[in-house]
Amino acid sequence: MTDASNASAGRPQLAEPHLGAVLASAGLDAEYVRAEGNHLYQRGEDGREVAVVDYAGGYGSLLLGHNHPAITAYAQELLQSGVPVHAQFSLHPEAAELALALDGIVRRETGDTEPFFAVFANTGAEANEAALKHAEMDRGMRLGALLDSVRSGFDAVRDAVRDGSATVPAEVFARFGVDAPGPAALDMLIGRLAAHNEEQAGRPPVFLTPEGSFHGKLAGTVQLTHNEGYRAPFRALAAQARFVPLDRPGTLRKIVDEERATLFGLVLEDSRVRLSEHEAPVVCAFVLEPIQGEGGIRELSAEFVQEIQDVCAEIGAPVVVDEIQSGMGRTGDFLASTRLGLRGDYYTLAKSLGGGLAKISVLLVRASRYRGEFELVHSSTFAKDGFSNRVALKVLELLEADGGAAYRKAAELGDRLLAMLGAVREDFPEVVKDVRGRGLILGLEFHDQSGAPVPAIAEAARAGLFGYLVAGHLLRGHRVRTFPTASAPETLRFEPSILLSDDDIAWLETALRDTCDIVRGGYRRPLALPAG
Amino acid sequence: MTDASNASAGRPQLAEPHLGAVLASAGLDAEYVRAEGNHLYQRGEDGREVAVVDYAGGYGSLLLGHNHPAITAYAQELLQSGVPVHAQFSLHPEAAELALALDGIVRRETGDTEPFFAVFANTGAEANEAALKHAEMDRGMRLGALLDSVRSGFDAVRDAVRDGSATVPAEVFARFGVDAPGPAALDMLIGRLAAHNEEQAGRPPVFLTPEGSFHGKLAGTVQLTHNEGYRAPFRALAAQARFVPLDRPGTLRKIVDEERATLFGLVLEDSRVRLSEHEAPVVCAFVLEPIQGEGGIRELSAEFVQEIQDVCAEIGAPVVVDEIQSGMGRTGDFLASTRLGLRGDYYTLAKSLGGGLAKISVLLVRASRYRGEFELVHSSTFAKDGFSNRVALKVLELLEADGGAAYRKAAELGDRLLAMLGAVREDFPEVVKDVRGRGLILGLEFHDQSGAPVPAIAEAARAGLFGYLVAGHLLRGHRVRTFPTASAPETLRFEPSILLSDDDIAWLETALRDTCDIVRGGYRRPLALPAG
Repeated sequence: MTDASNASAGRPQLAEPHLGAVLASAGLDAEYVRAEGNHLYQRGEDGREVAVVDYAGGYGSLLLGHNHPAITAYAQELLQSGVPVHAQFSLHPEAAELALALDGIVRRETGDTEPFFAVFANTGAEANEAALKHAEMDRGMRLGALLDSVRSGFDAVRDAVRDGSATVPAEVFARFGVDAPGPAALDMLIGRLAAHNEEQAGRPPVFLTPEGSFHGKLAGTVQLTHNEGYRAPFRALAAQARFVPLDRPGTLRKIVDEERATLFGLVLEDSRVRLSEHEAPVVCAFVLEPIQGEGGIRELSAEFVQEIQDVCAEIGAPVVVDEIQSGMGRTGDFLASTRLGLRGDYYTLAKSLGGGLAKISVLLVRASRYRGEFELVHSSTFAKDGFSNRVALKVLELLEADGGAAYRKAAELGDRLLAMLGAVREDFPEVVKDVRGRGLILGLEFHDQSGAPVPAIAEAARAGLFGYLVAGHLLRGHRVRTFPTASAPETLRFEPSILLSDDDIAWLETALRDTCDIVRGGYRRPLALPAG
Repeated sequence: MTDASNASAGRPQLAEPHLGAVLASAGLDAEYVRAEGNHLYQRGEDGREVAVVDYAGGYGSLLLGHNHPAITAYAQELLQSGVPVHAQFSLHPEAAELALALDGIVRRETGDTEPFFAVFANTGAEANEAALKHAEMDRGMRLGALLDSVRSGFDAVRDAVRDGSATVPAEVFARFGVDAPGPAALDMLIGRLAAHNEEQAGRPPVFLTPEGSFHGKLAGTVQLTHNEGYRAPFRALAAQARFVPLDRPGTLRKIVDEERATLFGLVLEDSRVRLSEHEAPVVCAFVLEPIQGEGGIRELSAEFVQEIQDVCAEIGAPVVVDEIQSGMGRTGDFLASTRLGLRGDYYTLAKSLGGGLAKISVLLVRASRYRGEFELVHSSTFAKDGFSNRVALKVLELLEADGGAAYRKAAELGDRLLAMLGAVREDFPEVVKDVRGRGLILGLEFHDQSGAPVPAIAEAARAGLFGYLVAGHLLRGHRVRTFPTASAPETLRFEPSILLSDDDIAWLETALRDTCDIVRGGYRRPLALPAG
């Protein structure tokens, strides 16, 4: 084969054929030929384009819509001008500019006085991996410093006891089963304390994250993704997380107490030696989405967030705020966490930061928690490239233009969309259980339909596929594109762009009302299913 | 701040300032304003562009050069036409086409008869993470099937013994310390076997990889990256690798033997019950680069590769061939592993596959080892996008054009470049220790210079910074861009594009001869150092 582009129908399907079969079985096997604004286009049988209104929105990547004209024009300009894409290990003034811009926006919004340093990556999952790595490096350095200081204490005590200027009380020896005070007793005591410390210091790091979390699917991050189907097969590959139930006050503190590790030291107090206890960091980080995306568009409560913030401050663990899906203005604020009163130690940004075109992600780390050493051990060939950095700067320029009109637009359109969803819920209370979210990250949760009057619907519900059946119907019956959230498939996601029009909203409303009507048995006709 | 692009000098540097300081200290703090072909351009003091010849080549991403006109033109066309970038969970005919094209090229070259399935990701490290995940899922499924079959054997034996049709020999009971043949003895025996099996099955997976390996810096892959500085701080985050020394026949087999896990089963042979032993998979995969990039541009030997292939076949572990840096034609073949006679079970591709513009990577998995279930649990929002897929197709078209002229060009230019490096080595045998590599992935290793006649050089060598000192001199003194390999800093890398000209080669030769002359003390003048 010399012509690589000469692949035709009838040849084997080697690109994820099983996924393709699943899509086809739900009627989701659409092919799109063009994308613009809030719409994707299929090719109709007559060869003409057929518009589909896009509420999936690239899983949150398209706050500015598909192929935003200012972004594609700028991208073409960059390409024409021969922008250096691959110039690793050189100065990147545009990366510095981007870091400053993000720092400025985040701090304007949160009121934080400390600057944030930026680490660059390519995807949301990669930014989260960088966060885990940075947190673990920091934990290791804090732990190392603690061990060093404890060891210095041992040395000081050994010297003082040797020269007779201090003594160790019998109860200290007794506590660790050492027969005091023979000549080798102190060495034996220190040996036991050191062995205990080493064992405690060697405990694997623990990540904490709320139940329902989704933080990506790379080896490290997938262990912080609650969905067991995604996580369990890969459990042995990476450090584990403990999943904290939402809104169960006290539970987080209990979990943290279970994970506590104490190191023992010896300190001189005048001529007496005293046992000291030091908490060693075991919890590496608390990682959360302010609005859980794949978990069913669930906003964390301000109370839960406050508890997280308090407990983490107490144990010195950083709070990592994953704003990959919720951030970049989608909720009406640049960060969804702002409204919750949350002050992150780390923020991860991606998706809409790339303007629907560039693959870029950034990890921001608060200066007082930042480890400059990390820059010398973490990098990526594709990251921090001149093209993506500049596209992200253009995105920020568009978001910030006219005093933040884009943010206001997201909030306002979100209110209207939510009001429509609420009205549908009111008219179909037996079908729609809940509508929720903020700005342009909204969810509609269906009641369990395993007892629905239409047998095909009840059957799909019992198989956990009801959300996909609905998605297929919306697409085939109404040219509305959306999907269930990945880990809560009874909830449909709505994450359109700020180009959402009244027509688009009406279009979705018609589709949802038709769907709900069928589900409750009104028409006694099936949801639109694949033809094949 | 409402204008995000309004960042100016004098404001804090928040984008990796420590890395910037390191670059500055080596004189590597260059800023590039344009990139084209085999060159990057700086802005001179007079405002005019100054060309730098690029031998770093985006760490292997630029086989076709910076901003290849056919690629940038095509990318602009795609943007103009409104190509759907974000259309997750839909049909992607261009991804299918890309998978077929890669499969065709790989099988044409290796002569393999089995097709390869494609999994899409965004970066090289992500493709390697997907490989680790796929291998672990496969290992888990094979292990699960083995455990199931052993358990069925227990049930069958239990039934047969119960109904008197079979008996368990006393030595089987004796081996596991069970007093035969009381009524509960068989249950006790099975209990002990099951407990042993469970313990063995629960052993963490082990990855094998040669010493000197580099497979990325995400949480999972960094543990397969030999360089301890990159790996050690993050050890607790992921499964561990064992590093196999190069060319020490028998060592791999010894390591594999140390990792062996045996499960015990019981089988009926007529009326007698026999103990059976089953090897459980502990080694998850052998992961290798055919030519180690960051390890100092070292090609694995055909003998070592044969040993790896044999041992892996024996234990049923997949061989993962990381062609991220060496592949896509750089060595004169599409895969560097082809010449070694290696048949990979998995291949990972990235870097030049994106044509110096797109961020795309692909994991190929041999059909007989492929788990379709993987498609339903692994994905990425940015992966498999219409823009990158199409750019990669264009790259393959360019590589395959004129019967593979690009491959021949890489081989031929590589020969010429290697000959020049060899000539420099011959003239400076006390400075240059070795030149090696194949095609356009070449390395020049310096002798240890800690006793060099020039004090500043000897000092840098003793600090492990000699390679960076040379890189700084090449850049500042000669406008030649290259770097030491990341894990073997005494080796300079040369990975130019196929647009490399005779002038470029002569340019590098002058620079290297000057450098070697200074190093051996000829001029008694310092290497060009940063002005500041």
